[in-house]
Amino acid sequence: MRSVIMHAPGDVRIAEREYPSILKPTDAIIRVTAACVCGSDLWPYRGLDDAADAPMGHEYVGVIEEIGADVKTVKPGDFVVGSFMASDNTCEICQAGYQSRCVHVEAMGGIGTQAEYARIPWADGTLVATPGMPDPDLIPSLLAASDVLGTGWFAAVAAEVGPGKTVAVVGDGAVGLLGVLAARQLGAERIIAMSRHWDRQELAREFGATDIVEERGDAGVARIKELTGGLGAHSVIEAVGTQESMMQAIRSTRPGGHVGYVGVSHDVELPGLELFFSGVHLHGGPAPVRRFLPELIDLIWERKINPGKVFDLTLPLADAAEGYRAMDERRAIKVLLTP
Amino acid sequence: MRSVIMHAPGDVRIAEREYPSILKPTDAIIRVTAACVCGSDLWPYRGLDDAADAPMGHEYVGVIEEIGADVKTVKPGDFVVGSFMASDNTCEICQAGYQSRCVHVEAMGGIGTQAEYARIPWADGTLVATPGMPDPDLIPSLLAASDVLGTGWFAAVAAEVGPGKTVAVVGDGAVGLLGVLAARQLGAERIIAMSRHWDRQELAREFGATDIVEERGDAGVARIKELTGGLGAHSVIEAVGTQESMMQAIRSTRPGGHVGYVGVSHDVELPGLELFFSGVHLHGGPAPVRRFLPELIDLIWERKINPGKVFDLTLPLADAAEGYRAMDERRAIKVLLTP
Repeated sequence: MRSVIMHAPGDVRIAEREYPSILKPTDAIIRVTAACVCGSDLWPYRGLDDAADAPMGHEYVGVIEEIGADVKTVKPGDFVVGSFMASDNTCEICQAGYQSRCVHVEAMGGIGTQAEYARIPWADGTLVATPGMPDPDLIPSLLAASDVLGTGWFAAVAAEVGPGKTVAVVGDGAVGLLGVLAARQLGAERIIAMSRHWDRQELAREFGATDIVEERGDAGVARIKELTGGLGAHSVIEAVGTQESMMQAIRSTRPGGHVGYVGVSHDVELPGLELFFSGVHLHGGPAPVRRFLPELIDLIWERKINPGKVFDLTLPLADAAEGYRAMDERRAIKVLLTP
Repeated sequence: MRSVIMHAPGDVRIAEREYPSILKPTDAIIRVTAACVCGSDLWPYRGLDDAADAPMGHEYVGVIEEIGADVKTVKPGDFVVGSFMASDNTCEICQAGYQSRCVHVEAMGGIGTQAEYARIPWADGTLVATPGMPDPDLIPSLLAASDVLGTGWFAAVAAEVGPGKTVAVVGDGAVGLLGVLAARQLGAERIIAMSRHWDRQELAREFGATDIVEERGDAGVARIKELTGGLGAHSVIEAVGTQESMMQAIRSTRPGGHVGYVGVSHDVELPGLELFFSGVHLHGGPAPVRRFLPELIDLIWERKINPGKVFDLTLPLADAAEGYRAMDERRAIKVLLTP
């Protein structure tokens, strides 16, 4: 079968790999209907993380081809959405809602879902079947639920977004934009998107942003303070992962407020004394997408949200290299790949 | 009046200062009944923070001598307990429970309560009167409420301590020990005190610790993991403020668990990537003691808790220098000073 492999930074190609097999009775094999390129795939692409002949992709929707002997909740022919982290969904950590840190967790990135087929470990704990075969126009949104929507949603929940609150969103990539959508759904009163790109500002407004702040760093923080009576936002979503974005998020939050951070941290060192006196709550990490999947699938199925709008470029799997380039050069917000 | 002044690291003396005056109509003057030496006073004493002719002390209980024209909730003759941070208790931040970050906050440490009298800014927002004149044996506990109990309590609340939870406490100073007491009061199922001093272990057990771990650093973390089925504690209280203690706290917490940190951070840099993948909640800072004062005073008045036990040395104000020495040399857990 065909699969995307990153041979080295900037070098993404299609390779032939063996059709996946059931390795454990809890596995399932899916035929991938759609996969995509993640912002985090750009770290190795840009040489900031290791990349050496690695299978790529961890977001996916697809149809079950085959199941292991112990799989009970999904069956061949089901259309399924899964998290980017496979989890048993039964251990104490999963039951507390942290499936991305399941005691049996397996990262789908190590398996690679930018491919025709993929093995899904812990199928019962990882996959959620849709109520039926989705209309084609729902597929991008269901695919978004697999990571980018689930991650933005987790960031909003981690930032304790809720009615009456002012939310600031640092980062205008797909996760940040879907953080805006999540904040709207969770009832935020005011949503400030921090973005300097007009196309992303437009999508942010469509998803529910009430204000746009173009400034960054200290100037961005000053602007958030201005908009919040000098206090800072109640809730701040951080969706980048750099030192600047983390400090921008922490400094934009009022004392006692909440930062939900989901940008994978790169070369970030948080200064203890400043964090101490900031008085903020800090929570984040790899999103436990599985916690939110049933709710997100419902919202999509009932057409109450349309997170698939973050995909502004769709390419066949064979053109994955162009998809990576388009995202790297910020010509596309997020690229959907169809095997 | 007599007051404690730190002239330089290690050099604590009694000096004569002017009797304090009402500077604003929201001020009150108290005659200090008892003050004490804080673990944070040891930072400048040891030369790790600046110290140059600074008035010392921020914990206090006392009797109102005089009030400004706008003070309404306390009157001359009242016995009062106040927080180490003066706050108006009416601004948006105070109302959200973060009085230590009040928009009008004034640090009592800048005023100095290791003295015969002290001016208390924002008296209505800062002070809570006891139901009557306390029996002398209640005074140490009421004094503890002013900072060290309020801080340990906040750490436990920040760590989301509650029924059914396993709590680990990093730090066996007065704050850590009172974090144990708070965890017990808040219903924790299991409370692991990390201490290698037998006298502190004993007090920790008296306050409610169910387990003692003597190991520190990685070995301490490994021991906490062993005691919690490999997962880590649900809630961890950090009451030291060093790089080692912060990392010990974060690493002892299960994914999705909560770290409440109240040790004033010194040379701490939190590694972003490790924090990201830890999946913990992090909250702390200067404790909003005022939030908890009414509840803590009630518990003390009804003799349900006895936090005053952390004071194992009582000295007249004139012997403050010996009090600092005793705490610095760990001959005393916490020193009470009587003006």
